Amino acid sequence: MSEGPASPRTEVKRLPARGRYDRETIDAILDEAFVCHVGFVIDGRPRVIPTTYARAGDTLYVHGSPASAMLRSLKRGVDCCVTVTLIDGLVLARSAFHHSVNYRCVVVYGTATEVRDPEQKMEAMRLLVEHIVPGRWDDTRWPTAKELTATTVLALDLNEASAKVRTGHPVDDDEDYALPHWAGILPLVTTAGEPERDTTGSPAGEPVVPDYVRRYRRP
Amino acid sequence: MSEGPASPRTEVKRLPARGRYDRETIDAILDEAFVCHVGFVIDGRPRVIPTTYARAGDTLYVHGSPASAMLRSLKRGVDCCVTVTLIDGLVLARSAFHHSVNYRCVVVYGTATEVRDPEQKMEAMRLLVEHIVPGRWDDTRWPTAKELTATTVLALDLNEASAKVRTGHPVDDDEDYALPHWAGILPLVTTAGEPERDTTGSPAGEPVVPDYVRRYRRP
Repeated sequence: MSEGPASPRTEVKRLPARGRYDRETIDAILDEAFVCHVGFVIDGRPRVIPTTYARAGDTLYVHGSPASAMLRSLKRGVDCCVTVTLIDGLVLARSAFHHSVNYRCVVVYGTATEVRDPEQKMEAMRLLVEHIVPGRWDDTRWPTAKELTATTVLALDLNEASAKVRTGHPVDDDEDYALPHWAGILPLVTTAGEPERDTTGSPAGEPVVPDYVRRYRRP
Repeated sequence: MSEGPASPRTEVKRLPARGRYDRETIDAILDEAFVCHVGFVIDGRPRVIPTTYARAGDTLYVHGSPASAMLRSLKRGVDCCVTVTLIDGLVLARSAFHHSVNYRCVVVYGTATEVRDPEQKMEAMRLLVEHIVPGRWDDTRWPTAKELTATTVLALDLNEASAKVRTGHPVDDDEDYALPHWAGILPLVTTAGEPERDTTGSPAGEPVVPDYVRRYRRP
């Protein structure tokens, strides 16, 4: 497991001290978040689309409709850039200039390949559901062969990934520490609210919220 | 104010019913979020970088170090795509296939222009601070001429923007509504935690947390 960048474009050039190349850091960010922003080029122009993903080992999976312009582009093997960002807090410095944000982000470069084997697709679907709501897969009606056909699944290798992380308090200029402005961190936390049951169609299930929903939290 | 897409690439093609082209919807999303993902092309390859932004009228501002590869690329007037995403909740359907996410996202296409006038740059810096922490600007040491020089500010017009929004409960296949699985929405909410004061350098200020920090919430 290398501690340095896997390729020149993977190297964090701005504020290199924030760069992280170990897979433990990268995996922890990928496992906590579940939305990525996928960048690709169409007609020479960039496009950035948010989507969910799942990770299994060295592979990132994304999925969607075969009609999706993003998936149709990526499955042709074009370069993509997948970025995952977690915002941990606002960093309030004494100077406006040194205001910042505490964040953890992962940038993955590569070319995706389509997962065509139905068993592998089913496993990717399971991973995608379980990554977002652990415990949910066994409490759903699983995909049919027709639904698998109606889903494009792409796999992206994580070998060209890097992370960038900012933590801690603001860093002001020496002479500014004497200023009277409050300075510090305002943490931001994403939590689950009250589950809202869908009562459409006289549902057969108990109105009891499953444990994995009631106690939902990201790792 | 047009209710249709401003250009072909701005049109939401997948699930067109989720497309929104009115500026009210677009502005509300841009004003609630404060992190965007900027996509651009370097050597023919896509790159996606998270950064903060602010909106004023028809203009989106991003800023950063003049050494930033992103800002150096964008200020040359290359095409970019700026995507802003808010995640509102997890949508748990009876079928794995119909699981979804409630989200609101804005995609802006265009070419950025550099803001060079010091007064305009100062105003953009104010907007960037005030967008993220309303009330903060007047409680900071403002940028010096040197700091303004050490900041690149770019402006992007919002005339080629669209939004995509999913709300509400899962939509399952008719025959699945009889299944016993709990279905519904698990709302996700981002809130501010306990402010952590930076006590570095024997700060002169009172340890009282300002109101705009203590009562922080996104619009």
